[in-house]
Amino acid sequence: MFGSIDHIGVAVVDLDDAIAVHRDTYGMRLAHRETLPEQGVEAALLDVGESHVELLAPLAGNTPVGRFVAKRGPGLHHVAYRVDDIAAVLDDLRAAGLRLIDEAPRVGIRGSQVAFLHPSASGGVLTEIVQPAVVIHA
Amino acid sequence: MFGSIDHIGVAVVDLDDAIAVHRDTYGMRLAHRETLPEQGVEAALLDVGESHVELLAPLAGNTPVGRFVAKRGPGLHHVAYRVDDIAAVLDDLRAAGLRLIDEAPRVGIRGSQVAFLHPSASGGVLTEIVQPAVVIHA
Repeated sequence: MFGSIDHIGVAVVDLDDAIAVHRDTYGMRLAHRETLPEQGVEAALLDVGESHVELLAPLAGNTPVGRFVAKRGPGLHHVAYRVDDIAAVLDDLRAAGLRLIDEAPRVGIRGSQVAFLHPSASGGVLTEIVQPAVVIHA
Repeated sequence: MFGSIDHIGVAVVDLDDAIAVHRDTYGMRLAHRETLPEQGVEAALLDVGESHVELLAPLAGNTPVGRFVAKRGPGLHHVAYRVDDIAAVLDDLRAAGLRLIDEAPRVGIRGSQVAFLHPSASGGVLTEIVQPAVVIHA
């Protein structure tokens, strides 16, 4: 059902500093940068193999990522798995009894469709599913 | 330098329960299971695309993963990037001034060579690099 790791989400304090480490030291290509006001973050995507690292800098303290950083510090925030048909996967997860945050897909970064599962569904791991807006040619 | 996401490491309380969710609900193949006494964990690898989910159940409370679970609860523990030549990458990271936990590679799961960077090197993300024991044919 889950085809690959689409990205790992990392909460950061300073987006430029985090981009510099991943691009200049780890050798990842900066693929995309976008402010997502409704999610309260400025985000950057860096390519690594068929996956991405998604860096998330909170726009304010009173946002989900801002509260995460205040409570736990910067670090791993979520994992996102790529799926072909997000509506069908959501139906299957609901039928399996998993607790969902998003009952229906919504628009995520770079025009993707995304939905979050509740961390309790996945052993404390905040888990996202992503259907990319375009086919990824790896 | 970093070729792909080799795996995400997830700290779990009950390994069988965590395997069941990832295999039966998420549709990942259980590829490997191993007890690593020197790391204080029983671990399982599940395939997802070119990557794995590595589930880590602590063998005792007084282990790194046991302390992690006691402090933060189960959840995302680390990310591991796949490299071709771990010794050369460690030299490059050291030359870039990054703080390392492992100054030299050591043997990890399934005969791989692994080394951990200090979380402070990567914005609070515990980061591992992995040179697999065998070539992965994705």
